[in-house]
Amino acid sequence: MAVALIILAAGKGTRMNSENPKVLHPIAGAPMLVHAMNAGATLDPEHTVIVAGHGADAVTKAATAHDDTAKVVLQTEQLGTGHAVLQAKDSLTGFEGKAIILYGDTPFVQPETLQAMLDAEADVVVLGFEPADAGRYGRLVMDGTSLERIVEFKDASPIERSLKLCNSGVICAPAPLLFDLLDQTGNDNASGEYYLTDVIGLARRSGHSATVVTCDEAETLGVNSRAELAAADALFQTRKRAELMEDGVTLVAPETVYFALDTIIGRDTLIEPNVVFGPGVTVESGATIRAFSHLEGCHVARGGIIGPYARLRPGTELAEDVRIGNFVEIKNAQIAEGAKVNHLSYIGDAGVGAKSNIGAGTITCNYDGVMKHYTDIGSGVFIGSNTMLVAPVSIGDGAMTGSGSVITSDVEPNALALSRAPQVEKPGMASKLFDMLKAKKARQSRGS
Amino acid sequence: MAVALIILAAGKGTRMNSENPKVLHPIAGAPMLVHAMNAGATLDPEHTVIVAGHGADAVTKAATAHDDTAKVVLQTEQLGTGHAVLQAKDSLTGFEGKAIILYGDTPFVQPETLQAMLDAEADVVVLGFEPADAGRYGRLVMDGTSLERIVEFKDASPIERSLKLCNSGVICAPAPLLFDLLDQTGNDNASGEYYLTDVIGLARRSGHSATVVTCDEAETLGVNSRAELAAADALFQTRKRAELMEDGVTLVAPETVYFALDTIIGRDTLIEPNVVFGPGVTVESGATIRAFSHLEGCHVARGGIIGPYARLRPGTELAEDVRIGNFVEIKNAQIAEGAKVNHLSYIGDAGVGAKSNIGAGTITCNYDGVMKHYTDIGSGVFIGSNTMLVAPVSIGDGAMTGSGSVITSDVEPNALALSRAPQVEKPGMASKLFDMLKAKKARQSRGS
Amino acid sequence: MAVALIILAAGKGTRMNSENPKVLHPIAGAPMLVHAMNAGATLDPEHTVIVAGHGADAVTKAATAHDDTAKVVLQTEQLGTGHAVLQAKDSLTGFEGKAIILYGDTPFVQPETLQAMLDAEADVVVLGFEPADAGRYGRLVMDGTSLERIVEFKDASPIERSLKLCNSGVICAPAPLLFDLLDQTGNDNASGEYYLTDVIGLARRSGHSATVVTCDEAETLGVNSRAELAAADALFQTRKRAELMEDGVTLVAPETVYFALDTIIGRDTLIEPNVVFGPGVTVESGATIRAFSHLEGCHVARGGIIGPYARLRPGTELAEDVRIGNFVEIKNAQIAEGAKVNHLSYIGDAGVGAKSNIGAGTITCNYDGVMKHYTDIGSGVFIGSNTMLVAPVSIGDGAMTGSGSVITSDVEPNALALSRAPQVEKPGMASKLFDMLKAKKARQSRGS
Repeated sequence: MAVALIILAAGKGTRMNSENPKVLHPIAGAPMLVHAMNAGATLDPEHTVIVAGHGADAVTKAATAHDDTAKVVLQTEQLGTGHAVLQAKDSLTGFEGKAIILYGDTPFVQPETLQAMLDAEADVVVLGFEPADAGRYGRLVMDGTSLERIVEFKDASPIERSLKLCNSGVICAPAPLLFDLLDQTGNDNASGEYYLTDVIGLARRSGHSATVVTCDEAETLGVNSRAELAAADALFQTRKRAELMEDGVTLVAPETVYFALDTIIGRDTLIEPNVVFGPGVTVESGATIRAFSHLEGCHVARGGIIGPYARLRPGTELAEDVRIGNFVEIKNAQIAEGAKVNHLSYIGDAGVGAKSNIGAGTITCNYDGVMKHYTDIGSGVFIGSNTMLVAPVSIGDGAMTGSGSVITSDVEPNALALSRAPQVEKPGMASKLFDMLKAKKARQSRGS
Repeated sequence: MAVALIILAAGKGTRMNSENPKVLHPIAGAPMLVHAMNAGATLDPEHTVIVAGHGADAVTKAATAHDDTAKVVLQTEQLGTGHAVLQAKDSLTGFEGKAIILYGDTPFVQPETLQAMLDAEADVVVLGFEPADAGRYGRLVMDGTSLERIVEFKDASPIERSLKLCNSGVICAPAPLLFDLLDQTGNDNASGEYYLTDVIGLARRSGHSATVVTCDEAETLGVNSRAELAAADALFQTRKRAELMEDGVTLVAPETVYFALDTIIGRDTLIEPNVVFGPGVTVESGATIRAFSHLEGCHVARGGIIGPYARLRPGTELAEDVRIGNFVEIKNAQIAEGAKVNHLSYIGDAGVGAKSNIGAGTITCNYDGVMKHYTDIGSGVFIGSNTMLVAPVSIGDGAMTGSGSVITSDVEPNALALSRAPQVEKPGMASKLFDMLKAKKARQSRGS
Repeated sequence: MAVALIILAAGKGTRMNSENPKVLHPIAGAPMLVHAMNAGATLDPEHTVIVAGHGADAVTKAATAHDDTAKVVLQTEQLGTGHAVLQAKDSLTGFEGKAIILYGDTPFVQPETLQAMLDAEADVVVLGFEPADAGRYGRLVMDGTSLERIVEFKDASPIERSLKLCNSGVICAPAPLLFDLLDQTGNDNASGEYYLTDVIGLARRSGHSATVVTCDEAETLGVNSRAELAAADALFQTRKRAELMEDGVTLVAPETVYFALDTIIGRDTLIEPNVVFGPGVTVESGATIRAFSHLEGCHVARGGIIGPYARLRPGTELAEDVRIGNFVEIKNAQIAEGAKVNHLSYIGDAGVGAKSNIGAGTITCNYDGVMKHYTDIGSGVFIGSNTMLVAPVSIGDGAMTGSGSVITSDVEPNALALSRAPQVEKPGMASKLFDMLKAKKARQSRGS
């Protein structure tokens, strides 16, 4: 059956204490909203409608950047969850399939849980959970497997408050039925808001069936403050670390390694303490990521040894057995098999051929103040320490550059290129200079 | 009413296993003693008297560096807490206000707690707490709200040991009364020491009133070993992180970010994992501090993006939207709005004008072996990669330096300055050199 | 009495999900097997026999690299622990002393525990422990202090399962008796394997005595998965941190500092957050290791200040009061008293004399593409920023190099050496270049 996602993402999130809309705060390097979109996307939805409000422009930008088929609709007034869902009605005109309502601040709902909701045999399906502390959650009033109604905590009787099954807010129902029921909800209550939860009672009264699918409390974890945001990130990290160790990755100190939502690490990779993975990283099997490394948007092939203190920025492609050493930054560069960049270098907008060795302190001068340019280094090249490669420039296979050279013109294969002033020695001059400087300092001290 | 602080800081702290006096061991980048001084300073005291003993010179130096109005007196013999307080008597001759006794190894007493002690209506006020495990703390024997006496654990009866209210040691009393009572204490006990706690019994017997103000156990946390020092630092960090998140700062991985006592971070600043703040850092709103950054004594204005792997040292002033990138060290430098220092540079004792771009590998050669000198870079300047700026030197607005240049003379505005040997190419020479070196290595291998 | 160690190290460790043999996975920088070998080595054994199977070549290499007197024997088929121990029989022909059986995946058995087993008065001694959760461990069936038999959990009666004393697998017995008993064990059981545990019953039935020595559960911690490997490392770290703090080392944030098995740190050393110690590091008293530093195979003498962001690689020897600053890599180098390498440098295969100052961006160009060469820097030398020292080269005492120089020939004491093209200034050229580049960019934008 066709599926439509409606993701509520209009809230301000007052307790976040932020200028930015709540659903754009990141977990594991991706906005919370993207986590919810990803969970829903596994159902292959025909429509994805995001209801935005606070910071709608930014929400629209982030949502469509992640999925350009997503449609964002505006909730201009904050009149409750029922009202929010109704904003999606026009976007789903004529859609006869099931709608699933998700929340942009509830990032951990699992695909299997959503599938179970789709598969449940009832007109309306609510996702419930039994928290360790039910607190002030709305309660699900059941009659056997049938859901009778959802009661808000503040309206619940003592007996209802003793119920353990709570409402996550996630609901699944045929779209026409959902909107039909929502059109019947009123706002005649203390808050003056339209409640999505009212649709259950309305459904039952109009002879429709309702039931509950349950999940772990962790799946329904919502984020309302920066502390909860950090806790959600920590939960993600704990799971990801366990999953990777299970898959044969060694984490020397798991609690010090941070992954992104989409990090992929191959078997028998060893990761030392204090490594941070930004979005878009793939590491093949048998690599070593040493301490204090930072990787984003890059690919490390088998046998690579990275760090310590290596920074791989987006667009970095490392072939097999590449070695990137300490205080080295690589950006938008392809480094071929067996090449080495071991110390204190910046390689950006460049290609490095197989088995080339890039000396310490090498810099690709890729920016002229206005535009970026490319540096093309062949294979078997030896770049001497502290070589400046002023792009655009190419260095032929098997060539060599002298230490301290500024290379502004292309270098032929197998050639040696140099730009170097001859060494001059002034005997005794160091002593004289030191004496002079010390005397000057003494004069200044007396003067001050 | 006028207040005098007496801070006991004479102990050796044998369990610290250190050459340094206990109260100088740091928590959150500041000596424990400074934490106690800060707490007391909120009462705007007329006198601050610190009683030093072990390592008195170092204690004096640290105390007066933090507050040059503090007076340090010596306790040359370790004859008990009562004896220690008496060393402050001469310094408070003629002072008629209240004295509060604090401890240099008890860093977390809160200003509100001290104020509550000042406000309490009794002649002598003791700070009490109810620990989870009362253990061997001295017990406070009450009669209603009246404090009868303090009983040391080893002298306590079974019934007294069952009391839950314990003595923190912090005491408040009019200075003349305090010293009068202390003059009456004896050392006729097992330890042969003069106990400060004896003043309560003496006060009551002479018709004075005594009472108790209570606080959380955490406020009275004392530090006696390196493990307790680390635990105290952890407690500080946990609170500071929670406080900042509450204030609207995002900490991606709060448990990996370390703050100093005086760190100030603006709202909607994002701090990635593994960041260390030394003393004296202020970050305005909307900045981003990326992973593995280290900041001390610096100011980051709105919109700044720092790191990863950026080190800001004391005297660094960054204006709005400044970008400091990886493996960059900034020290005693003013960087104007929108300027960028993105890679592998050292900018020390310098000014950088608005929107200037400092190329990778740039170094301000600020030290001539004897003295430090200043580098003055204008606005809209483009410093080519690996430029050495030999200070004192100035680069005019809109100027440019060629990559690899050593700049020893001032550069006019809008000029291009270069110091570069021409590039020379020797065809086929790289192959020949490699062959020669390999042959040499082979000979050496055979020879060895 | 003479002792022989038999260390079982043949298992594949399926749950490790690895190409590498289980016992070679590292804890605290050393293969698990080395931890077991070290524990046994404290008994000064006459023979150390390691029974290898999966990955035997790698195991042999690691074992003999750590102790070249160790003998590795092969268990070609996995026929049980009894069979594994029997593979050591030929290597111990004629040996009449006691054999102790250890496990390559049980790294934390303590020397004192093994000594207690040697000292116990019984023919066969088994190491037992009482875990918090006895789970599926084999149980030790006692009669007073006499061990009757070991019963595998799956064969145990309900009463036997209620026993709390469990079998660690570590056994001590005279070698001839051990092999005699093992020759009698059969494989007539569900697994078709020869069980080492059967020797207890056989011993008792043939009139020999058996008893149990007990230890903490943590000593018998076995590693079967990457998660358990990480947990074992964490346990090691927790103990090492506590031990160092007890010994007078300050760890500002103990949970962020990682030590190796053999790390030695002197009293009153301060270690900031996020420091990683690889194998072979010794730090003397009163040093400071700042945040984000990484040390391996090096020695730091009294008063050294290292980091932040300093990397000391193997062969680094720092004399007293040496200062190594940020983004500096030192490898195989001797740095004499009071010398400083403060910023962005690589010093490899080099010596630096007392009180010399190495400017920012200095690189020892130690590799010519084929061989490594040595750089010899005297005392009182001032190396200007960004000096390339093309090894082999030596710089005499009191000499100086100009900033940006490439030094290819030896420099005499007290001389100033330079290689520098003169600074040239082209008035107005920066403006023209910027204009030209902008125009070019505009043309390209229109063209695309």
